[in-house]
Parts: sequence; C-alpha cells; structure tokens
Amino acid sequence: MRIDRTRLAASMEALGRVGETPRGGLTRLALSDEDRRGRDLLVGWMREAGLTVTVDQMGNVFGLRAGSDALPPVLMGSHADSVPTGGKYDGQLGVLCALEVLRTLAERGARPRHPVGMVIFTNEEGARFQPAMIGSGVLAGKIPLEDAYNARDRDGKRLGDELERIGYLGPEPCIPRPARAYLELHIEQGPILEEEGLPVGVVEGIVAIAWSRLTLTGVQDHAGPTPMRIRHDALVAAAEVVRAVREIPRRVGGDMVATVGRLDVSPNIPNAIPGRVSLSVDFRDPDEAAITRALGMLDRIVKGAARREGVTAELEHYWRVPRTNFDPGVVDAVERAVRALGCGHRRILSGAGHDAQYMAAICPTGMVFVPSRAGRSHCEEEFTALDDIEHGANTLLLAAAELAGASV
Amino acid sequence: MRIDRTRLAASMEALGRVGETPRGGLTRLALSDEDRRGRDLLVGWMREAGLTVTVDQMGNVFGLRAGSDALPPVLMGSHADSVPTGGKYDGQLGVLCALEVLRTLAERGARPRHPVGMVIFTNEEGARFQPAMIGSGVLAGKIPLEDAYNARDRDGKRLGDELERIGYLGPEPCIPRPARAYLELHIEQGPILEEEGLPVGVVEGIVAIAWSRLTLTGVQDHAGPTPMRIRHDALVAAAEVVRAVREIPRRVGGDMVATVGRLDVSPNIPNAIPGRVSLSVDFRDPDEAAITRALGMLDRIVKGAARREGVTAELEHYWRVPRTNFDPGVVDAVERAVRALGCGHRRILSGAGHDAQYMAAICPTGMVFVPSRAGRSHCEEEFTALDDIEHGANTLLLAAAELAGASV
Repeated sequence: MRIDRTRLAASMEALGRVGETPRGGLTRLALSDEDRRGRDLLVGWMREAGLTVTVDQMGNVFGLRAGSDALPPVLMGSHADSVPTGGKYDGQLGVLCALEVLRTLAERGARPRHPVGMVIFTNEEGARFQPAMIGSGVLAGKIPLEDAYNARDRDGKRLGDELERIGYLGPEPCIPRPARAYLELHIEQGPILEEEGLPVGVVEGIVAIAWSRLTLTGVQDHAGPTPMRIRHDALVAAAEVVRAVREIPRRVGGDMVATVGRLDVSPNIPNAIPGRVSLSVDFRDPDEAAITRALGMLDRIVKGAARREGVTAELEHYWRVPRTNFDPGVVDAVERAVRALGCGHRRILSGAGHDAQYMAAICPTGMVFVPSRAGRSHCEEEFTALDDIEHGANTLLLAAAELAGASV
Repeated sequence: MRIDRTRLAASMEALGRVGETPRGGLTRLALSDEDRRGRDLLVGWMREAGLTVTVDQMGNVFGLRAGSDALPPVLMGSHADSVPTGGKYDGQLGVLCALEVLRTLAERGARPRHPVGMVIFTNEEGARFQPAMIGSGVLAGKIPLEDAYNARDRDGKRLGDELERIGYLGPEPCIPRPARAYLELHIEQGPILEEEGLPVGVVEGIVAIAWSRLTLTGVQDHAGPTPMRIRHDALVAAAEVVRAVREIPRRVGGDMVATVGRLDVSPNIPNAIPGRVSLSVDFRDPDEAAITRALGMLDRIVKGAARREGVTAELEHYWRVPRTNFDPGVVDAVERAVRALGCGHRRILSGAGHDAQYMAAICPTGMVFVPSRAGRSHCEEEFTALDDIEHGANTLLLAAAELAGASV
C-alpha cells in the first residue's frame, strides 16, 4: 500500500494558493480570512474522504475514519496556519500527508482495528497569537481555555472572537482525549537531512525551548538638541543585548541556538531618541541545564546593558517547554516503516516546537521529518522535493497502519 | 507694550486638549483628524484677532494684519503637528505666541509700516510624512509640490489626499513670497538655557543635519532548527551598526549628535531569524565637515557589519541640510528686544531643524528660544515654565514690532 503522489501534489498546490504571496510563499495567519478559506477547503476534502468531521472549542478540526473495534484512534496531524511571508510546507504538508494517508486507506477499503484520523491544530505558529501551539496546548490541558480565548493579536483582537468570526468556534470540548498514538509529519526546518542526503528523519524528541521578553525604558527625547552626554537610549541598550545574546550559544557550547526575533522601538521615528524598546529572546537546547545557564547569562547581560545606558529593564521568562522525548514504541514503529520502504533515514531531534510536543503529554507520540532545502523555513524560499515528501508520506502511512493494527 | 500671559496660557490649554494623551502629552500627527481640529481652532482665533486668513496648496495657513504701507510683511510662525506621544510645546507654542503678539498689536491698535502676520506650517515633524518641514520646504522652493503630495505615511496614505480630506488643500500658490522677516519662537529642546538659568535664547542658526537610511537583508529562517553556524541575521548586523553609530560623535569630537531613532524588523516574530531590518541614522553638527566625516565612518561601519554577518546592505544618504546662519540684522533685532526686556539671555545654535531653516533661504530670518525642562522634548514630559514663555513672547513682540517699523 502506497500513497498517491500526484493526488498529494495537486492538493498541496490547491491549498498553497490560499494566502499565496506574490513571491510564491504563504501568509496565512491563524484565524485570518485566509485561514478560514484554507480550513474550508480541507474540511471539504476530509468529508469527501469519508471522514467524520468535528470542531472543538479551540477550532481544532478532527476527521475520523472508524476502525473495526471500539478502540482509541491513531491520529495524524499538524497545523494549517503560517508565519507572515512564510512557506507552503511548514504545517500544511503534515495536514495534507495525513489526509493523503486517510484517502489511501479509504481507497483500499483498509479497516484497521483502531479508528484512524487527522487533526488540524489552531495557531501553532504563535505569529498572530501568543503562545505558539495554543490549540494543542489547550487540548493537552496545559493552557486554560479562557487564557487562550483572551490571547490578543497586535491589533487587540481576541482569539476567541476571531475563532467565532471565521466560524470555527466548535462545540466539542477541548480536553485530553484517549488516543492510540499521535503522528506528525513535518519539514525538518534545519539542514541536517539535506546535508546527509537522507529523505526521512525519525524524530526522537524536541529540544527544550525558553522564551523571554525584555522591555527597556530609557528617556525619549529629541535627536537634535539632546547632547550625547545626557542620553538614555533604549535602543542602544537593546543593541548590546542583541549582540550578547548572539554570543551565548558559543559560551554555553553544544547545540544551543539563541535568537532575538522580535524588536519594537517606540516612538520609532528618525528624530526621536528611542524611549522604549521591547524584544523577544528564544533559547533552544537538547539539554535542559544549558537553557537554565543561558537564562542566567541573559539576566546578567540585561542588567549590565541597562546599567551602562542608564535605562530600566523588565525581563520576563514567560514560556518554557522542557525537552520532549517521544514514545519509544512509536519512534520504533516509524523506524520500521521507513526501513520497510528501504529508504535512507536517521534518528533526529527537532529544533522547533510542534503540536506533537503537547500531544506527547497525553498519548504515545512520534514524528516524521522530511528535508528542508538549505535548511530554510519560515520564509518564502521554504522547499521540500516531492520525492522526499512521497517517502515521508509513505512512512507516515505504514507507521499509522501498524499502530492502528492494520494488515498492510 | 507687553503680551497678555493669561490669555496666552488659556489658548495653550485649549489647543493642548486637541490630541491630548492620557499622560498629558500630545499626539497630533500631521493631517490627522486631530490636526484638522487644532487648525480649525487656530483659524477661528486668527479671524477673531482680525487677521485675513488664507491657505496655500500645501495647507500652510497664513493670517495677516495690514500695515500702514504696501510693504512685505513680517511673518511669525511655527507648526501645529506633533510627534506621537509628544509634548504640548514643540511647535504649538510658537504658533500661539505669534497669535498672542498679533492679538496684542490688534488690542493696542498698533499700525506698523509693514503688515505683520503669522503662519502655521504643514508637517514639520516628519513623523507621519517624510521629509520633515515639508510645508516650509515647498514654500521655499526646495521641495517640488508634486513630491510633497506623493509622500506617503506608513499606511500608504498620500499627503495630497490627506490635505484634501481634512479640508486644508488651499488655493494659494505655495511659492516663495516676499517677506520683511520671518521670526519663530520655539522651545530649545536641549538643556543649555535651563542649565545656565536663562529664559531666552537668541538663535544664530541651525546645525547641519544629515539623514540616512539603511536596509540590511539577511536570511529569514526558523529560530529553532537553524544552527548558529549557518545564520545571516539582519538584526545582529543592525545591532552592530546601532552600537557603532553611538560611538561616532566621540570619534568625531565637538558637539556632534548621532541617533538611530527608527528600526523596523521583518518578519518581527519571536521564532524567526530576522531576514530584513531597516533603520534610520540622524547626524547633526555645527560643522559641515564633521558631518561628511561621520557619513564616511557610517559607510565603513555598515560595510564591516554586513560582511561579518554575511548580509547585504543598502545605505542611502537621502537628506542633508547644510548649516543655517540666520540673518545678522534679525538676530540683532531679537537681541535688542530681549535686552529691552532686561531679562537673561544668550546666543545659541539650534540642534533641531525648524521651518525657520527653509524660511532663511527666502527672507531674513531669526528665532527665539525658551528653555526646555531637563532639555526634554518629543516626549510627554516636555515642559516650559510660563514665566519663561512670557519673556520669550515679549521678545517676539518687540522684535517683530521693530522689524515692522512700529513705534512701541
């Protein structure tokens, strides 16, 4: 049993047009009109594939195919939202490969013991509403539903209101539900598989992640008549922090990455000394203790930069996800699947957070990676070759079928 | 003859409520609804003071009181727009002191030989539309009218359309017109007068100003799975530029100031490596040659930062205003006026650009400064004591009267 690559490619192309950017990337922010149109398209396809579609209180969309026995389902899934000017593979590919597996099972009349289904999670990217992975976070009982509803975008719009506006505030309770397994196919978003010429990664877990936010408050003043000697420039202090954060991975050693991805200046005009700057810091490392060390370094860096410039600093370590180790049984099932296909693979750790991270808290979970050209993602140049996608989707098919107790 | 400080204070309070921020500052961006309401209030007062009001093609508002002879007028003025979360003195004070002088002349039935009038210039701040001082720039023949009309704000709105929308696209040609003199009262926006305990500054000129903009383009990528070794982070390069720009005044010596006031990150989310950063650089110095040296340093700083991070840089030195020396006759008249009042004063150079800069190109020009508390401006804390304002306004009155050929 194998998936149909032509059908998969056609679906990728059709969904990729919803929110397409002029340069061939994707802007489909969570709960935007584009997100709604993408969801509508997917739900139509899910119904055509004979799936029973339900929507929960967080707008997570489920599509289930009954099994021969009354057992917990094998779920496959990912997300359909993107970052601004992102690519057409991050998230969308996992959803479409899950759909393609279910189409293949339906076509073959396969009847595994466990139900098999798919899920589209809400607001995985965290680009519009923070925190990221909010749909799976609520489902896993890690984020209170009310907190999620009250998340606001930059324009002050509430997540709960936007869910309702686009028609995806569903009636199903968003609570942990029993599952045989959760499997997520995703692009690697890093360079390793490509560098090693391997089409499939058997993901063992996800690195630990910590997010901090820093607000520096100096003295907003006119850029002209204010002598250098009396300045307290929030951006000058922020620049010191940005430079020092870049050096932290070298100081900590190992595979740490550190990023200042967001930085907002106020009032942000050419002729005013910046009075306030807020910025984000993202640390990731396979090793929990390294993150703790990095956060300590950040504390000292911020204190030093603020003191030198005479500005005040508010630093908040507001989100931390421990390292996730996927279920050995599911990881082994994924590895058996890729071996059965006879294609190159390796075990790998994910550097990015995924909905699988939260799902791992409530059911046996694993992931399948496919390569990212030049390791690039969250950009319009994001690309994975269809040959690799086919190998990945077949790995997902065989692993899901085995876990569901099908004879393939 | 003296101005009426109670009347002036009442007008300051009334106009200060138009666009007032919750913390007592002012947000009255050029050609916004607040700007329209502020202008409407001023025009009403100008008519009450017996002035003949006209509006030119750039929305500059003129109010004239006839003289006894058919001679070119003495104009006083400033601007009524503010920066975002700015203060209630920058611009507005100069307009209201000009009005107060004209009210005083009217009350006394003074009939100087020259007409005396006032002008409110459009978009002096450059906060909403660039370049700054666009209304006086067109009037002085330094900026083509069509270029000004086509300036766009961050939302893409055209200056010309916004002028029309708020009802201030006037019929009068915006071209150089003969004037006996132009006088502008303004807050110092620096610390010198306060530090020296002087209520009035006799402004001899304006420092040279250069604006540059820099766009750094790196590789937008996911903040998680992208190893540090393959990153090209536009914000890391930008931070190096911000830090180095801060050091330029020290390296150049003298009274130079250098500011990065605006910095925009793309895509500006916590989990993406910044692919593009654009920022502004503002240099000011009494000495033209120092600016040229600083721009050369900036070129080298940008090249080095871009090379080290592997990003590309586009640096554009797009606006440069040479040092302005005011007319010695007008400066002397201002000094005679403040001496006649018997209050403390000094000669001073302006570190900020003003409409007076462009006016100096077409008529004899001078300025009167009043102190800024703690040297602060372009912020909600901007403040000048009423005693100082009274001295400044009386200086303006006596200087304008002398230049207009009145007997006071």
